[in-house]
Amino acid sequence: MSEPTEPTVLTPMLEAARTASLALAGATTLQKNAALQAIADALRQNVPAIVEANELDRTHGRENGLAAGLLDRLMLDESRIEALASAVTAISGLTDPVGEVVTGSSLPNGVKISQVRVPFGVVGAIYEARPNVTVDIAALALKSGNAAVLRGGSAAENSNRVLVGLIQQALASVGLPAESVQTIDPFGREGAALLMKARGYVDVLIPRGSANLINTVVAESKVPVIETGAGVVHVFLDESANAQWAEDIVHNSKVQRPSVCNALETLLVHEKAADRLLGPVLGRLAASGVTIHGDERVQAAFPGAVPATEDDWSTEYMSLDLAVRVVGSLDEAMEHIRRYSTRHTESIITSDVVNAERFLNEVDAAAVMVNASTRFTDGGEFGFGAEVGISTQKLHARGPMGLPELTSTKWIVRGMGQVRV
Amino acid sequence: MSEPTEPTVLTPMLEAARTASLALAGATTLQKNAALQAIADALRQNVPAIVEANELDRTHGRENGLAAGLLDRLMLDESRIEALASAVTAISGLTDPVGEVVTGSSLPNGVKISQVRVPFGVVGAIYEARPNVTVDIAALALKSGNAAVLRGGSAAENSNRVLVGLIQQALASVGLPAESVQTIDPFGREGAALLMKARGYVDVLIPRGSANLINTVVAESKVPVIETGAGVVHVFLDESANAQWAEDIVHNSKVQRPSVCNALETLLVHEKAADRLLGPVLGRLAASGVTIHGDERVQAAFPGAVPATEDDWSTEYMSLDLAVRVVGSLDEAMEHIRRYSTRHTESIITSDVVNAERFLNEVDAAAVMVNASTRFTDGGEFGFGAEVGISTQKLHARGPMGLPELTSTKWIVRGMGQVRV
Repeated sequence: MSEPTEPTVLTPMLEAARTASLALAGATTLQKNAALQAIADALRQNVPAIVEANELDRTHGRENGLAAGLLDRLMLDESRIEALASAVTAISGLTDPVGEVVTGSSLPNGVKISQVRVPFGVVGAIYEARPNVTVDIAALALKSGNAAVLRGGSAAENSNRVLVGLIQQALASVGLPAESVQTIDPFGREGAALLMKARGYVDVLIPRGSANLINTVVAESKVPVIETGAGVVHVFLDESANAQWAEDIVHNSKVQRPSVCNALETLLVHEKAADRLLGPVLGRLAASGVTIHGDERVQAAFPGAVPATEDDWSTEYMSLDLAVRVVGSLDEAMEHIRRYSTRHTESIITSDVVNAERFLNEVDAAAVMVNASTRFTDGGEFGFGAEVGISTQKLHARGPMGLPELTSTKWIVRGMGQVRV
Repeated sequence: MSEPTEPTVLTPMLEAARTASLALAGATTLQKNAALQAIADALRQNVPAIVEANELDRTHGRENGLAAGLLDRLMLDESRIEALASAVTAISGLTDPVGEVVTGSSLPNGVKISQVRVPFGVVGAIYEARPNVTVDIAALALKSGNAAVLRGGSAAENSNRVLVGLIQQALASVGLPAESVQTIDPFGREGAALLMKARGYVDVLIPRGSANLINTVVAESKVPVIETGAGVVHVFLDESANAQWAEDIVHNSKVQRPSVCNALETLLVHEKAADRLLGPVLGRLAASGVTIHGDERVQAAFPGAVPATEDDWSTEYMSLDLAVRVVGSLDEAMEHIRRYSTRHTESIITSDVVNAERFLNEVDAAAVMVNASTRFTDGGEFGFGAEVGISTQKLHARGPMGLPELTSTKWIVRGMGQVRV
């Protein structure tokens, strides 16, 4: 038996989540979709209450000196609430992963086995100052048949309380347990610590937010974690790189949305391509406001570059900054990537088929690319519909995750009295 | 970057394992099969050296008062070594999971994506007094392209040293790195503790052995663990159970091999079937030497039963003992299972299609069965060829694991200059 023996302040909520998860596991797709539609309606019908609670959080945030970026992430207005409601409706339109038969066979003795997708049970989430994640994770968990226990952080506590209240009313209105979605924000940091220890109650824990938060959860959690980690993402311009592709892909990978995990952070350039490519590629970046942190050869070739330090090679800037290094060979590029990569996304720009295949085979990352923008590592781009996150771990899920990654499987075995011989 | 910063006594071996894993990831199936065949040959050609080292371990074991069961598990003789060599040859005959394309598509912009199986990298294993596991895990890891770091325990240290030495020679003889398989037994308990902390070096850790050992590893490991846990396995005889099936399946589930995790531990009987079934079912078990631990109604119906205590319901006997309880309904049976099950294997014997479907849908376990022996939850029986273990966790793998469960995936993305719009 895996049940924890010592009750904590969270135990009643965790018990309720587990009971709710049994009802959700048995709910039909139609019931779950009705709940999601009720949630979307409730969001649209309660904009003033959400905005009011959110303004309280933002006032506290300003008083506590929350950074402007965090205050912006915290903010919910009518258009953001409408976007959230639309996202919930979109999730209701996705294929339900529960019940999918993954594989199956008939054993030699006639026993039929099939492996079917089932919900995890209870999904925990820990994140900070992002009330939109409350709605997002709740909707993804519900669609995949899981109960959700959410720790959204004190900075968004009032927003989260109102949002979870609306979600619970919507659930009850369609006959599903209100406790399918709960917030543990009132228990503060102690609640988060207990959630990480709730083995036997919580089947999987998803941290969302800063590298610091994710690392803490990974290090401290006794519950299995799906790590959606940082991206120190590289592009390597090989000797034979097509100049236009190099320019377009580097610019798109760095500039299109610098604050996300699939954005480019370090550019590696083959020394035999440096004279040809550094000028146009870095010039186009600089024109878009990118600061180049270059090694000595980059500084010589591109006078606007500032000197790169050792720290630059392992930094996820998430800003209009780019580390740039000249390397002597494909092997030296791959060695650099092995050393500094967070194994998220790596791309080579090359016209040489052998180098392309070597890079695809030998580089160890969730996504390895040839002649494509690193920004393609994304659930939406990959056609998954939902964005559950991008896993940088190797167990269970790797790369962009869709709804099936929020499920487990079980084996269904049907016999007619067979025994093992 | 996930690399640990403080070197330990294990660091040189872990670095060597990681370097070896790069070579293994690039090795062809033919090379890996040649290595496995060389290992099988080496085992057969070095029986005297293996037996000699093993006798030393067993002498120490006897001096240290090792239990008879452990001494037997520790023992390697010519026939067991031959069986090990045959198992290695069998593994070389299995399909190589590496390179399998799991899924793929062409995005609307022409970018091609495919998800392919890749080795984890470095697999760690912690087990005790079972030198056969040294060969077994090494062969499974090699076939799936992983390096292995093994902690086999001080009781088998001499046997493991000789076995790993032979494996390393065999690897070198076919041009693969000897460090693909290493033992950390010389570092004792400190080595095991460091292995559990080797995040960034070890991709997945597999504990094998007692529930105690597995629980320790699960609780303490910072490295992701694949838990192959205990089985408190139930059979429920429903009101409508076919008497012959009930008798055969209960007997087979309990008696065929009582010491394994898919053996029956608790029998639940519908009260309306008790008069009809308890006599023949328990009588046949008793004739095979099974001790019945029964509740009051079972004791009344079957005088040979000893009283069951609360502890019996959560005990994995792994012996010719069986807990038996009479329940009032299917719901009461499922409630008992929810409370005491380790979520390994649960089976219902019934002729009622509604009850069969409810049991399959509502019981949460790695394998849920109707009218079949619980002994079928097994990689061999399921047709996987290899027996990597039976996962009782919900993440990554659940139920019997084959070679694919020793791999991760990565996304291969091939473009022609595409950028994200």
